[in-house]
This record gives sequence, structure tokens and C-alpha cells, in this order.
Amino acid sequence: MKKSLGAKPLLYPTPLFVVGTYNKEGKPNVMTASWGGLCCSSPPCVAVALRKATYSYGNVMEKKAFTINIPSVDLAKEADYFGLVSGKDTDKFAGAGVTAVKSDMVDAPYVKEFPLNLECSVLHVIEVGLHIQFIGEIKDVKADASLLDDQGQLNIERVRPYLFAPGDRTYYGIGQFLGKAFSIGKEIKGE
Amino acid sequence: MKKSLGAKPLLYPTPLFVVGTYNKEGKPNVMTASWGGLCCSSPPCVAVALRKATYSYGNVMEKKAFTINIPSVDLAKEADYFGLVSGKDTDKFAGAGVTAVKSDMVDAPYVKEFPLNLECSVLHVIEVGLHIQFIGEIKDVKADASLLDDQGQLNIERVRPYLFAPGDRTYYGIGQFLGKAFSIGKEIKGE
Repeated sequence: MKKSLGAKPLLYPTPLFVVGTYNKEGKPNVMTASWGGLCCSSPPCVAVALRKATYSYGNVMEKKAFTINIPSVDLAKEADYFGLVSGKDTDKFAGAGVTAVKSDMVDAPYVKEFPLNLECSVLHVIEVGLHIQFIGEIKDVKADASLLDDQGQLNIERVRPYLFAPGDRTYYGIGQFLGKAFSIGKEIKGE
Repeated sequence: MKKSLGAKPLLYPTPLFVVGTYNKEGKPNVMTASWGGLCCSSPPCVAVALRKATYSYGNVMEKKAFTINIPSVDLAKEADYFGLVSGKDTDKFAGAGVTAVKSDMVDAPYVKEFPLNLECSVLHVIEVGLHIQFIGEIKDVKADASLLDDQGQLNIERVRPYLFAPGDRTYYGIGQFLGKAFSIGKEIKGE
């Protein structure tokens, strides 16, 4: 039997994005966000939604650029800290002891210590409600060279990201390999 | 050292959505999608991006409604199958042995056997590129009553969803509990 839980933003899993931006004077900032995801393969695009009240919202509107930085589980405390303080009055990079690197593709900084970085240029701004959604074209993906395999490929087990679960607002790691997509369903298809 | 991987839709984790729709004649369909995520808290909204070539794209445009259904790991084969065949020529519900239930909130069906179902009404349609993004207002969230705790709350460990990893296109389960959000970073903040 199904039970109605009401109209709420409840969905599993959601990602853990750290959004990197510069302000007007070029001061780097980062904030944590989980309302987002990929939204197009060609051009490759990612969406992230921020409240207007955030410092980062103003930065994205000013620079029309942002980065998405994926922390590994080892940096979960740092990423959580980015959501506890405001860039209005705090240098979050100094506070967490991480490094802002200027993107060579867009006018935004990425977090050097985070294993995966997407450099994005704003394509669309959609006023959804409390949150404003930015759709960014992914101009480049950068990853720690040490995480690539012999073929130069990355996988999720090397990056060791984690996820955010709305509702009880918890973080969980990535679990067991379950199978290949576009493959495990062939049994049902009768192939 | 960072290495450039090029402009591509690579991000961890992405969700595994099964999108439920009706066609013009009221025939239910489902498809698998991973380009999406929550995008607003108020009104609660979820975004999902589909290619125009899909059967479901036409259904969403026709009905301006869809559901997002989250499979548990036990139903990963069924969900993968939904991405291997087209609703143009296949009754995917019959093929997978699952049940379409008409939403009482929007003109779309949800998958009874999947533990978490979001019933959505289309608010925005954004032409991003190859993918068209639908922003749906979440009119209700339904969950299997058996998964709720004594307080009527749900958590990710009860739902047992999984995730999709782009790049090598693999599925992974949910791993260990890492901590509470807006909490584990307090150590760095100095609280």
C-alpha cells in the first residue's frame, strides 16, 4: 500500500555539489548544493539551483560562470563546512585549508583538492521559485591525474564521491557495483 | 596534477529515474533517465531531461505531466529493461511484470512496485540541446507504507535505491552512512 507523504522535495539519491564562483572583485567562493544534475549530453550541460539569498547566486549572475566540484568522502567535512558559513563574511577556502585554482576555460575557480571539477558557462537561468536554476554548459571536465586508469579513464570507485539524502539530511557513501547499464535488463528483454 | 578529460557529461553520482507517462490514448509507458535532479524547494520541483526522439518526450508534451519512480536495487533489472526497449512498440509494464497505477494528482501513471513515486505537473520546458529539460512541480510523494518508520518518516536505507555512474555506465548501490549534513562541518567552523 502506498502512503502519501505530501508535496516535498524528496528524492534519492541527490548529488553533493560544491559550486565555485568569483565575486565582482575576483574573490573566490564555494557553496554546497544538492539540487542539480546533468541535463544534456550535447552540448554537455549540468544544472544547479541556488537561492537568490546566497552569495554565490550573485556571483553566478555577475560572471555567468561556475564550477561544480565533487568532493571525495575524505573531504566531506570541508564540503559540509561550505554550507555552514557565507562567503559574504568568510574566506571559505582559507577556513577549510583548500586551494582555489582559476579555470582556464571560464571565469570561475575550482577546488584543487576535490577529485572532479566541471567548468561551466551559464546558458540558461530559470526562475523556478525559491530556487533559481542555472544551466551551465560543461566546457571541460578536470580530474586528478592520479585517479585515472591506464587508459586515462575515470570511474566512480576511484573518485569515491558520496551523496546527499534529503528528508533526514544525511550523507552516504557509494556502495557495491550492481552491474552494467543497458545490459542487466537484457535478461527480461529475452536477449 | 589535474588532467583535462574534455567537454562531456561526466558527474558522480547521477540518479536512476524511471519516468512514467501516458500517451494520447492513455496507454502507460515508462523510461529510464539519469539526467535530472531536484531543482526547487518551494514549490517542490524536480527536473528530468529527455531526448525528443523518445516516446516519453511526446507523452510529456501531450499530458504536461509525469511521474518519477525510484527503483530499489531488487528492481534494477526491470529499470534497466525500461531503457532497452521503446514504448512505441512494447508494453513495458507487461514485459517487466510491473503495475501502472493512475496518479490521483496528475495525468500520469506510477509504478506500484517501485518504493518511491513523485507525481509531477510540468511547469517549464527548456530546450537545452539534444535533451529537453522538463521541470515538474511535485504535487505529491508516495512511498510504500511498509517502508515508513514509526514516525511515518522515510530514509534512504529503507528505500535502497541505487545510482548511475556516467562514463563507464555502471550501477552502484548506496554505501555507508557518513554523517549528518549541516553538522559534520561544524568541527572546521570551530563550533
